[in-house]
Amino acid sequence: MAIPDIKRTLIGAPFPTSREVHERLDKVRGLAIFASDPISSNAYATEAIMSVLILLGSNALAMTLPLATAVAILVLMVVFSYIQTILHYPEGGGSYTVTKDNLGKYPSLLAGAALLIDYVLTVSVSVSAGVRAVTSAVPELYDYRVIIALLAISLITWINLRGMRESGSIFAVPTYAFIVGVLLTIGLGLLRAAGLFGLAPLPSFAETVPPTLSLTGFAYVWLLLRAFAGGCTALTGIEAISDGVKAFKPPESKNAAKTMVAMGIVAMSLFIGITYLSTYMHLVPVVHGESILSQMTRQVAGTGFLYYWVQIFTALILFLAANTGYQDFPRLSSFLANDGFMPRWMQNRGDRLVYSSGILVLAVISSLTVILFRANEIAMLPLYALGVMLSFTLSQASMSHLMSRIGQLQAGETAQTSVTHIHYERTWRLKKGLNILGAFTTGLVFMILAATKFMDGAWIVLVAVPLLVILFDRINKHYQLVAETLSTKGFKEEELVEVADVVIIPLADVHRGTLRALQYAKRIATDVRAVCISTSPEMRERFERRWARFPKLTAGVKLEIIDYDYRDILTPLISYIWHVNHEEFPGLLVTVVIPEFVPAEALDRILHNQTANLMRRYLRAQEDVIVIDVPYHIPSVAAVQQTHKGRPAERTEAVVKPAKAV
Amino acid sequence: MAIPDIKRTLIGAPFPTSREVHERLDKVRGLAIFASDPISSNAYATEAIMSVLILLGSNALAMTLPLATAVAILVLMVVFSYIQTILHYPEGGGSYTVTKDNLGKYPSLLAGAALLIDYVLTVSVSVSAGVRAVTSAVPELYDYRVIIALLAISLITWINLRGMRESGSIFAVPTYAFIVGVLLTIGLGLLRAAGLFGLAPLPSFAETVPPTLSLTGFAYVWLLLRAFAGGCTALTGIEAISDGVKAFKPPESKNAAKTMVAMGIVAMSLFIGITYLSTYMHLVPVVHGESILSQMTRQVAGTGFLYYWVQIFTALILFLAANTGYQDFPRLSSFLANDGFMPRWMQNRGDRLVYSSGILVLAVISSLTVILFRANEIAMLPLYALGVMLSFTLSQASMSHLMSRIGQLQAGETAQTSVTHIHYERTWRLKKGLNILGAFTTGLVFMILAATKFMDGAWIVLVAVPLLVILFDRINKHYQLVAETLSTKGFKEEELVEVADVVIIPLADVHRGTLRALQYAKRIATDVRAVCISTSPEMRERFERRWARFPKLTAGVKLEIIDYDYRDILTPLISYIWHVNHEEFPGLLVTVVIPEFVPAEALDRILHNQTANLMRRYLRAQEDVIVIDVPYHIPSVAAVQQTHKGRPAERTEAVVKPAKAV
Repeated sequence: MAIPDIKRTLIGAPFPTSREVHERLDKVRGLAIFASDPISSNAYATEAIMSVLILLGSNALAMTLPLATAVAILVLMVVFSYIQTILHYPEGGGSYTVTKDNLGKYPSLLAGAALLIDYVLTVSVSVSAGVRAVTSAVPELYDYRVIIALLAISLITWINLRGMRESGSIFAVPTYAFIVGVLLTIGLGLLRAAGLFGLAPLPSFAETVPPTLSLTGFAYVWLLLRAFAGGCTALTGIEAISDGVKAFKPPESKNAAKTMVAMGIVAMSLFIGITYLSTYMHLVPVVHGESILSQMTRQVAGTGFLYYWVQIFTALILFLAANTGYQDFPRLSSFLANDGFMPRWMQNRGDRLVYSSGILVLAVISSLTVILFRANEIAMLPLYALGVMLSFTLSQASMSHLMSRIGQLQAGETAQTSVTHIHYERTWRLKKGLNILGAFTTGLVFMILAATKFMDGAWIVLVAVPLLVILFDRINKHYQLVAETLSTKGFKEEELVEVADVVIIPLADVHRGTLRALQYAKRIATDVRAVCISTSPEMRERFERRWARFPKLTAGVKLEIIDYDYRDILTPLISYIWHVNHEEFPGLLVTVVIPEFVPAEALDRILHNQTANLMRRYLRAQEDVIVIDVPYHIPSVAAVQQTHKGRPAERTEAVVKPAKAV
Repeated sequence: MAIPDIKRTLIGAPFPTSREVHERLDKVRGLAIFASDPISSNAYATEAIMSVLILLGSNALAMTLPLATAVAILVLMVVFSYIQTILHYPEGGGSYTVTKDNLGKYPSLLAGAALLIDYVLTVSVSVSAGVRAVTSAVPELYDYRVIIALLAISLITWINLRGMRESGSIFAVPTYAFIVGVLLTIGLGLLRAAGLFGLAPLPSFAETVPPTLSLTGFAYVWLLLRAFAGGCTALTGIEAISDGVKAFKPPESKNAAKTMVAMGIVAMSLFIGITYLSTYMHLVPVVHGESILSQMTRQVAGTGFLYYWVQIFTALILFLAANTGYQDFPRLSSFLANDGFMPRWMQNRGDRLVYSSGILVLAVISSLTVILFRANEIAMLPLYALGVMLSFTLSQASMSHLMSRIGQLQAGETAQTSVTHIHYERTWRLKKGLNILGAFTTGLVFMILAATKFMDGAWIVLVAVPLLVILFDRINKHYQLVAETLSTKGFKEEELVEVADVVIIPLADVHRGTLRALQYAKRIATDVRAVCISTSPEMRERFERRWARFPKLTAGVKLEIIDYDYRDILTPLISYIWHVNHEEFPGLLVTVVIPEFVPAEALDRILHNQTANLMRRYLRAQEDVIVIDVPYHIPSVAAVQQTHKGRPAERTEAVVKPAKAV
């Protein structure tokens, strides 16, 4: 099976560009695709708060619900901010686009870099967590966890390369199953807590854990902040929808905004519900033991069908949360590439209308991360969520700036407007205030995360983000330079460099291949110079004898045989070409014809002298040299043996007609 | 420092080809270079016999001297055979050449493959043994043994890349120091044994080791054979001189033959001397303990200057025995390459007149072997010496065949002779007999080695040798095919494929780079077709607008804009070229001009669309398509920032004039 066939089988038939709109997501699939990351956070977010508070003893767990409520309020603020982003920036782009529009280039690159790193970590962390769920069940697989994680990444990569709708369908199942399972558990728990329908009341545990630390004043507040920061893992992935507005069916903005609202409500209902019931029953987190979610489900619903349902889909949604990275990373990369900050080819869509290059780059980088951290998501967590918080801060600061601009415009204060994303906003002052508050809060969380986890690995992100920004800037400067260099502004057709009527053709021997090259050279110039570097008198004599056998072809060709007492024949060849290029025809384009063997089998290329390749590489670096490859094809040994025993076919007609007609 | 400068500093200035004869070895250096391998075997050969015999108890050690004498006789037979080889085949080539001349292609390839594998093992085993000597002294280095071994290989590679004479000088010191040290010890030991000059008589140990095994009949003989086979490690490397006759100063044959004789006498003197004194004193081998050579030296000379001298130079000569591999592998590869069984570039000599490619290939393969076996030479030993024994067998069988031919010729039995390597041989019958006996014996040793060590790793060699022979055959068939395909025998100048007056130039945009390509295309053909694949109406409109801005350049050019609803623009381009090539101009050469950006910095190449590279690769596979690259150079961002702030220089004259004038 040829490579194109394999690709077709794996990826599916290509989609025409005009089909693009049909590949969009409806709200139901959109929620499943974009929400698996934030909704899956409920598997550990409540516990993340509790595991810090427990240091102050079990009595301090009473602070869990207030802190969770604070997190939920923060989430609602962020969601509120992003809904405005979606409505004002219907073409998508999220933090990066909105920051670029409001705060300028470098803050936007900061947001872009932070998010890209976080998306890579989304994949690595989620897949590793999923693998941990698997290896907890089957401990024999623990030694193979890196391989399993890499296989999982390959699987998700493959699904995403096949295109959006299909992946939407695949990912819908576990997301909704998880939501339904947890909601049922919470509902049942609330009914039991309220003592309705004659259900048994919920148990309440009075196990007392003594405090490990006894803190007051600033240290106490700092611990509460750390607990709050832990709960903020619930925020990761919220911004995804704003990046992906264009993935929705029209009307894109409205569908995206509605999905965002649904996601916020669902995620926070689960979060508050889990937290409420856990603290109601005085559950206590156990290090390396049963998770809070598992404890709560078991107490509410017993170790029965609902319990296993929730456990299985917890594992699955964790595993599949990696998919949000596959939605976000390629799309953000394409925005950055479109603006010239990342390689241009990252904005190209593949056969199935997905950003194939971005998907593959993400697969490679996240696989390397998994290998580097040996699929240990605990070690990766300190790096995680930093990028998201930085982007929230920049995004909300940008939205407050936009609201100011809108306010000024509506008040007629700005005569000449640079505001492009305008809707009339009656409550711009309120929205501005909320965005400032939100920016301040997420900025604080960012600093708490960076400070408390710096030595655990957060420093890696704090170093990598500015390096990425420098790289983006460097790439951008290169593209600008290319554009300037190629620009035809003020270009006159007469300015083009003239082509010299000379062709140099390096030869080592006279055979069918070089004769064909000679014939081609004679066709395009009158001054043809055949250059042969002779390393021994025998070689010179042999060459001259064979040359003389073709009087018609060699007529009019200037033969230059250069005696050379070293073995690197490239040096005198290059020297000769340099002389012709710079001394005989300065400022003109000089042509070099290189006769080239093309063996039918790629492996056979290693058998042929590498001089031609080295020369081509050298000549590529020269300003005024045009290189012409005249190929001569060598059939494969196998092919010749099959057809006949004697002389090989003069010409193998192994040309494959392209599959698609124009 | 540029790469050529680094190369110059490391390797030294290039030598002219005409200097070749002066780079040859005299006999003193020749012995040091070629003999370090066989002479270093004395560090362990006696012990290899004893460590098998000790299984029958210390009384059985009395068999050591008879077995060592048998080995010495075998060595002398092999040396005798190789001296004739050297004299009859003065151009060198050893087993491979002599087998090719007498037994034909496949036996000679068998000899070549066996020897190449053995040369790789010579390097890996010797370097690992040297590293073990170092880590025995400094156990902290044990964890770094693979790194140390790789560094040692790099050092030896570097010395060899610098050329022969220098490496001869470097290697002369430890070889001669080892020989002198051991000879002095043996001499002193013999004087003491004889009770001359009033020296104290040698001690005699009567320690009795009980037998581990009690064997009779066939099993007893088999054990003796195993002990004999162990002693045969003394034979490795003996054939090296016959491969390297041409490395000697003229008269090459005579110098090589004399060196061979000297090597045989020295190596066997040491071997018999060590064995005699060891058994005279009733020394007993200790597993993982002090070596027999060390015990003997200590008893004869005391733990003084001479003892440490021998110990130090034992380690060094073991280490440097690896160098024989660097003499033999590249040279044998060049013979095989010259006959078309290995890649042609392996017969090229580098700047310093050594076979640089062969040296580098050997360095890579032996490094991989060291990594694979974690620098554990004990694990490699079962693979070692097999190849040498196979090549001895084939070589001696060949020499006996040659003697037959010479005999027939001298008797006038063959009228038309195919014998090329003729000297008059009075005693051809005796020589034939000795060669047959030698071939039989080494063949038997080969089978004993293969049988007793099969499961320990010998199977790897027994699998690899035939695979290599198949590979050689495959390469040879390819070169034959190339020669046939390119042959001008019976070729008429009229047979050349005509060039069609058509040029296709794929364009995605109109800029300075593509305009230059267009200008070039117009110069070489009248029918120029600019092909643009348009993926959207906007793109088509933009292209047409920009195209219209250059009426003079575009005059007479046929513009083909192809609308395409997919994103892999390569498919319609290839389809168009296929159509022109096969339907409009069947059987003619068609030209494609590809405009190409050349960024000044290699890393920037990743930023540019890879479509041109993919197209070039596709077109390379087409029989009748000539590809012309028209480069347009993009300066580096750094360079532009240095020179000025505005528009980049139109043309950077960064052309480096080649260093060497013609």
